[in-house]
Amino acid sequence: MEPVGRRQFLAGGSAALICTLAGQKVFRDEPADVAELAGGVNVPPKVAAQQRNGQTVFASAQTKSSGTRREYWIAAEKRKWKITPRGRDQMTGQRIPGKNKFSAYTYRGYTGGFGAPLAKGQIPGPLIVANVGETIVVHFRNRLPSPTTIHPHGVHYDEEMDGAYKGKFTDPGGFVQRGQNFTYVWEAKKGTEGIWLYHDHGPLDPIPVYKGLFGPLIVRDPTKPKPDREFFVFMHALEPVATKLNKRFWCINGRAYAGNAPTFRAKVGERVAFHVISLDDHFHTFHIHGHRWKDADGTIIDTKTMGPGESFTFEFTEDNPGRWLYHCHVFSHLHQGMTGWYIVD
Amino acid sequence: MEPVGRRQFLAGGSAALICTLAGQKVFRDEPADVAELAGGVNVPPKVAAQQRNGQTVFASAQTKSSGTRREYWIAAEKRKWKITPRGRDQMTGQRIPGKNKFSAYTYRGYTGGFGAPLAKGQIPGPLIVANVGETIVVHFRNRLPSPTTIHPHGVHYDEEMDGAYKGKFTDPGGFVQRGQNFTYVWEAKKGTEGIWLYHDHGPLDPIPVYKGLFGPLIVRDPTKPKPDREFFVFMHALEPVATKLNKRFWCINGRAYAGNAPTFRAKVGERVAFHVISLDDHFHTFHIHGHRWKDADGTIIDTKTMGPGESFTFEFTEDNPGRWLYHCHVFSHLHQGMTGWYIVD
Amino acid sequence: MEPVGRRQFLAGGSAALICTLAGQKVFRDEPADVAELAGGVNVPPKVAAQQRNGQTVFASAQTKSSGTRREYWIAAEKRKWKITPRGRDQMTGQRIPGKNKFSAYTYRGYTGGFGAPLAKGQIPGPLIVANVGETIVVHFRNRLPSPTTIHPHGVHYDEEMDGAYKGKFTDPGGFVQRGQNFTYVWEAKKGTEGIWLYHDHGPLDPIPVYKGLFGPLIVRDPTKPKPDREFFVFMHALEPVATKLNKRFWCINGRAYAGNAPTFRAKVGERVAFHVISLDDHFHTFHIHGHRWKDADGTIIDTKTMGPGESFTFEFTEDNPGRWLYHCHVFSHLHQGMTGWYIVD
Repeated sequence: MEPVGRRQFLAGGSAALICTLAGQKVFRDEPADVAELAGGVNVPPKVAAQQRNGQTVFASAQTKSSGTRREYWIAAEKRKWKITPRGRDQMTGQRIPGKNKFSAYTYRGYTGGFGAPLAKGQIPGPLIVANVGETIVVHFRNRLPSPTTIHPHGVHYDEEMDGAYKGKFTDPGGFVQRGQNFTYVWEAKKGTEGIWLYHDHGPLDPIPVYKGLFGPLIVRDPTKPKPDREFFVFMHALEPVATKLNKRFWCINGRAYAGNAPTFRAKVGERVAFHVISLDDHFHTFHIHGHRWKDADGTIIDTKTMGPGESFTFEFTEDNPGRWLYHCHVFSHLHQGMTGWYIVD
Repeated sequence: MEPVGRRQFLAGGSAALICTLAGQKVFRDEPADVAELAGGVNVPPKVAAQQRNGQTVFASAQTKSSGTRREYWIAAEKRKWKITPRGRDQMTGQRIPGKNKFSAYTYRGYTGGFGAPLAKGQIPGPLIVANVGETIVVHFRNRLPSPTTIHPHGVHYDEEMDGAYKGKFTDPGGFVQRGQNFTYVWEAKKGTEGIWLYHDHGPLDPIPVYKGLFGPLIVRDPTKPKPDREFFVFMHALEPVATKLNKRFWCINGRAYAGNAPTFRAKVGERVAFHVISLDDHFHTFHIHGHRWKDADGTIIDTKTMGPGESFTFEFTEDNPGRWLYHCHVFSHLHQGMTGWYIVD
Repeated sequence: MEPVGRRQFLAGGSAALICTLAGQKVFRDEPADVAELAGGVNVPPKVAAQQRNGQTVFASAQTKSSGTRREYWIAAEKRKWKITPRGRDQMTGQRIPGKNKFSAYTYRGYTGGFGAPLAKGQIPGPLIVANVGETIVVHFRNRLPSPTTIHPHGVHYDEEMDGAYKGKFTDPGGFVQRGQNFTYVWEAKKGTEGIWLYHDHGPLDPIPVYKGLFGPLIVRDPTKPKPDREFFVFMHALEPVATKLNKRFWCINGRAYAGNAPTFRAKVGERVAFHVISLDDHFHTFHIHGHRWKDADGTIIDTKTMGPGESFTFEFTEDNPGRWLYHCHVFSHLHQGMTGWYIVD
């Protein structure tokens, strides 16, 4: 065999290669042109058939569940997003140099019938919540240039409600094009209790996810008391491929560094729940100062490893006033943004 | 201190360095010459003594266990292996460019006394199974050019049955040379129930592992009902060091990309078990669409982090027909092959 | 947008970037000058106020706990440290090439009032132990050139006992300067039982951690029997940024490769506890040969994934004599030092 130089191997097998789209290699640390990549993706046959019928709303409101319906109107939209709006890291007092603004993709909640926006598009997107036994109905509208979807974790759904691109097997919910709508119906059956997430799983996955298309989903057991405070914590990287910025930001909920990442607040005596979710190409360990919790296996811990797509909840009764750090315990993540304040009065 | 350039540090401390063998640095992303490396390894003293006696079969069939014996005949053999036999990724419909065939190392099962092969050599190797209380006897024959072994996880075994290279402390079972045999005796004692793995742990470890030398081992509790369907899922990278190909493939059971990686099938109403095993230099999160399971700690999850050498089982009663993806949720692994179909009728 | 070259992105977004200190980028694989970096860190306001008062001992011995006090005297000191004192890897018999000595930072235990050293400074530092209900008092003296701290995991402590640098919010215990003292008071309340760790969390974090500033902390339940043997196992990398050596060493307790990393010893019939702790920028899986244990969730395992800041205990009754390997199952970590012997007589 011809000797193969190191550079050639790195070019072909680099850890930073994410995927090959339309014949183009996409790297995590190089900006990608989503519109150009989207141009190379063919419309799947089931979706093309639907288009020929002039159908733009896929109605599948019939569901086997007899539960209460929880309806959501969510659009995918562009939004200018500042990763470090304060410009400073409060953990070190240092100014954060360089550009920090990018063209994000966000899920944005609306009132019924897409009447009025409930808020600006957020990273993460709006909380989807259901009690066990209920049916979740998400009316989705794609206002982004490329096909996107909503794929949920944890809940029960029929094949066509998967929200995942599958090549020639793709259902319309797995390829919602610009300006089109799709209504997802998911069932919060018994046995789906817990904290979950939803995210884009369309043909350009994971780039739209890396631009902000993800959010929390929770299935509650209504027989259990609701905590006094609930915090939803996404641990994720904003990568050059998606931000076109020249570095990676290690983020909590789309923001990096203490004072920019969310500052959570609670009071002594309150029952507090942290819902922690991980979603990028990396592994993290969630850690909080001055507190600890009993894990589901009964051990008492204050740090927990998480990988992409995982989510867990921990609860405690607040007993420790002060200004505390919560952070990823991977040191290079912590020191490049993956930390925030938890303030207890 | 003299300033040291970045390149020099990367050359010395690169994340892609696996090991130093016979004075040569071995990198994960550069092809290695196994025969040349093997030439630099000295025969350990206990093995040399055995050779001087002309001994080629190490008989230690005596075992403290009074359990039933389960006998296996397994050879380590070369085999040409196609990583992407269909040449196409069914999740995206795209053709998979580049070479995909390499000289694999496989464990291959035989009938008693190495009479006849039970199948071609496979990645992963044949399932080794025992009920609690039984004794596993593996007659191993090495047909590869370099010394290899079988090292099991989970089961009980005496020191000389470890199958691990340990320098001057190496037992004959930790250094089985070309053309030689070794009979491993392991005990599936009470307290070893579960899904495990076996793999080469010889002097060239991990290169032979990266070429395919691993397989599943399960210790069953016969008082518990056997699932209707069982799937064994190895999550592992095939690296340039072992394949001599110019990129890494993220694989399930030696194959990459949907339609190439195994397509698992079950029927509604069946009791289904997935046995998931991780074995490379990386971390993965196993995820399956349209399903979820109760983890050993009682939480309901659909994604689980795994590191090298870990293995776990999850079970559910199938209730959701359709074509589903199972995959590593690390996006760059998913999009470079670590995904397959699970089809429910 | 101007196309941005790959090199420029790697320079900005490299995975090996740890943090930015005083305007300087610090890379994991390039030596850093701690004194120079420390010079760029401002004294936080609360600490400056204390200095103006001429205060060098921060006394907060009052504590809400009525428990027994466990007092420790620990100094942070420099020490020349050999990573591979035997110069040879006993797993392969190979000589370990290159330099292996560096200027470590260690926690060193003293008798009361810093009377006499109990031992040389160690990696990891001295074991801090308390029974549930007791109060831990650590008299800390910093003999290093840069501000350092002790931050504990798991135990209960008031905000000012956090030992963490927080920019302008920093309490004196989060910025203990050269020659200064600080007395930490932590409470081993009910609900803090388990194996934990302590480490520097000062303004130069994580460089001092990477130079050796960490140790084990255990809160015991005195109603449970103490194991006959206890082993404390830190899995961590010694990185060029901290060692100024030209490669990374994958270490157990500050030492790399079998025969250099600790050799643990036990006897058949003894109750053995391994306390395993992970603390670097990486993920590991702890594995031991010839043994397995029941995890807290009830599954039987012999390999477990860990991330930075995590710690767990497993126990078994020793039943298997021999010379066994324990190691990180990430192959490149195993083969670059993260392994040792466990010898059972």
